[in-house]
Amino acid sequence: MTVQPKATGTLSSGDGARHSRIYGVGGYRPERLITNEEVCTWIDSSDEWIRERSGIVTRRWAREDETVIDMAEAASRPALEMAGIAPQQLGAVVVATVTHPYQTPAAGPLLATRLGAGGVPAFDISAACAGYCHAISLASDMVRGGSAEYVLVVGVEKLSEITDKHDRGTSFILADGAGAAVVGPSDTPGIGPTVWGSDGEKWDTIRQRRSWTQIREGESTDDVGMDAATLQMAGQSVFRWAVWSMAPVCQQAIDKAGITAADLDAFIPHQANMRIIDAMLKQLKLPEDIPVARDIAETGNTSAASIPLATERMIREGEVPRGGLALQVGFGAGLAYAAQVVVLP
Amino acid sequence: MTVQPKATGTLSSGDGARHSRIYGVGGYRPERLITNEEVCTWIDSSDEWIRERSGIVTRRWAREDETVIDMAEAASRPALEMAGIAPQQLGAVVVATVTHPYQTPAAGPLLATRLGAGGVPAFDISAACAGYCHAISLASDMVRGGSAEYVLVVGVEKLSEITDKHDRGTSFILADGAGAAVVGPSDTPGIGPTVWGSDGEKWDTIRQRRSWTQIREGESTDDVGMDAATLQMAGQSVFRWAVWSMAPVCQQAIDKAGITAADLDAFIPHQANMRIIDAMLKQLKLPEDIPVARDIAETGNTSAASIPLATERMIREGEVPRGGLALQVGFGAGLAYAAQVVVLP
Repeated sequence: MTVQPKATGTLSSGDGARHSRIYGVGGYRPERLITNEEVCTWIDSSDEWIRERSGIVTRRWAREDETVIDMAEAASRPALEMAGIAPQQLGAVVVATVTHPYQTPAAGPLLATRLGAGGVPAFDISAACAGYCHAISLASDMVRGGSAEYVLVVGVEKLSEITDKHDRGTSFILADGAGAAVVGPSDTPGIGPTVWGSDGEKWDTIRQRRSWTQIREGESTDDVGMDAATLQMAGQSVFRWAVWSMAPVCQQAIDKAGITAADLDAFIPHQANMRIIDAMLKQLKLPEDIPVARDIAETGNTSAASIPLATERMIREGEVPRGGLALQVGFGAGLAYAAQVVVLP
Repeated sequence: MTVQPKATGTLSSGDGARHSRIYGVGGYRPERLITNEEVCTWIDSSDEWIRERSGIVTRRWAREDETVIDMAEAASRPALEMAGIAPQQLGAVVVATVTHPYQTPAAGPLLATRLGAGGVPAFDISAACAGYCHAISLASDMVRGGSAEYVLVVGVEKLSEITDKHDRGTSFILADGAGAAVVGPSDTPGIGPTVWGSDGEKWDTIRQRRSWTQIREGESTDDVGMDAATLQMAGQSVFRWAVWSMAPVCQQAIDKAGITAADLDAFIPHQANMRIIDAMLKQLKLPEDIPVARDIAETGNTSAASIPLATERMIREGEVPRGGLALQVGFGAGLAYAAQVVVLP
């Protein structure tokens, strides 16, 4: 005998807003400035080589006692202020990070409590440098699905803690910081369809050098201890993938948003490397006068934080118009990527 | 002079399905059975004490060489089969886990590639024992927002790797396993509104004992090294919170789904502890004949995996009807919780 359902067709599902948009962004750059000169005390290099290779002039590293929660809070407050939203009005908090230093609990609940939004749904996502664009997509769907009215999205990283200072492939690139955005309901479309994906075949390209399991078991004979938990990157493979694969992804995001490149007021790619940005621009054939985010020169590569940080700077410096259209694209470890056109707050 | 937007009101946003539902579930329990007798070789306890205290008779631990990806794959295949969905049809993969042993990259992209769904958006979320219900909510919103058609949700944990075998508060409870669900578009509601939240004030209640930062810095004088990266839990606080706070959350999930407790065909709470389940039942006043998930007796507490594992068992054993209504609630570290009524696949 099969058990029969008691009731069918009776369930209700929630309804959300017709559309969503970003109402505010905020950023936090740690005070501690790391010059190329300082980097060259760790690796055999030069200011000229680092600038030519990456476009980075300075980067910011957090103080040792400064946590991802501290940085996330500092970026969230101006984002909430720009949005005109009190922390108590938030319906959810989504933190994109790979450097929260606990396997569990997530950073989200602690951040929510710090902000005075304690009680709201709060969780972390892991999508590396594509984390912010993933979280914007999720936040948009949450708002439209009725799961939350206003969602705080934060991209935050303390990469200095997992950087091998003596690794010539990464030490001059990685940096710390936080960027935040407030996503909420809108009568008109403010966040275009997300074009996203991953490539697990290239999972090894950017990764923690040894797993916690290997470190626990002391399996790796030559790299043991927490030094083996630093990031390693196959720079050339990442460069090729970013340049060749992300241009079509950007074009799809433009097409799916129902606009053309000529409608864009800004191009805000993940600040991975200035050479990647320049090479992507050549592939993409955007209008020549379009403002392009180049925050990496002064801020370094802050992974999930780089896009909101660059956005915050462009708005603050009046380089892009409030209400204009920006194409943003995140890409990195996973490999994972996500792109969407958004209306600037 | 303020920069003016080039175009306004031109953006399109995507459209998804009217509703969503779960089309298949699958589970994987590692072969290695850990009896209470074996646990009592680690802690000063007895089979009787463990049963009375937790309701756990046996639990499963993965082999040392068995990874969260292996377990996730083993749970995903039967879920896809029940749903009648090929891996290539997936539009996204969401992995809820706190035991993937890399800060980055996430487990998702590797799992997608293993399944033959390489290329799809794939990321991890961190919401501990509430991870599965968080991911079901996100997947539902993604399907309804048009960001993906079919979403594979996986809850997977290898808690044995972060269990302090000599800790009388956790060693007899924690276990390994994976559960998966396929969420897709539906003409009728199949996933009710999610009632969710967090309490960062109780962030310390269940957590990694020392942060990676502290372990790196060797700050903690008496607990150094990877032993300090095990889980610790304030059992009594968690017990009280779960029993007193989750009953109203469950009632809200029932109310928001537009049904009454009498309509439910199953109650599937996170398998934290049999005593928590029994105490919640008393608070909730569900109909006496309602099938209640008690998979913990044989499977232990598998965190994010426990709800899909319990669901899979109840369907397989014919205890609950296909198409019936189940109330599911996850709660744990964060503290974080999420509950929703779903139509069983």
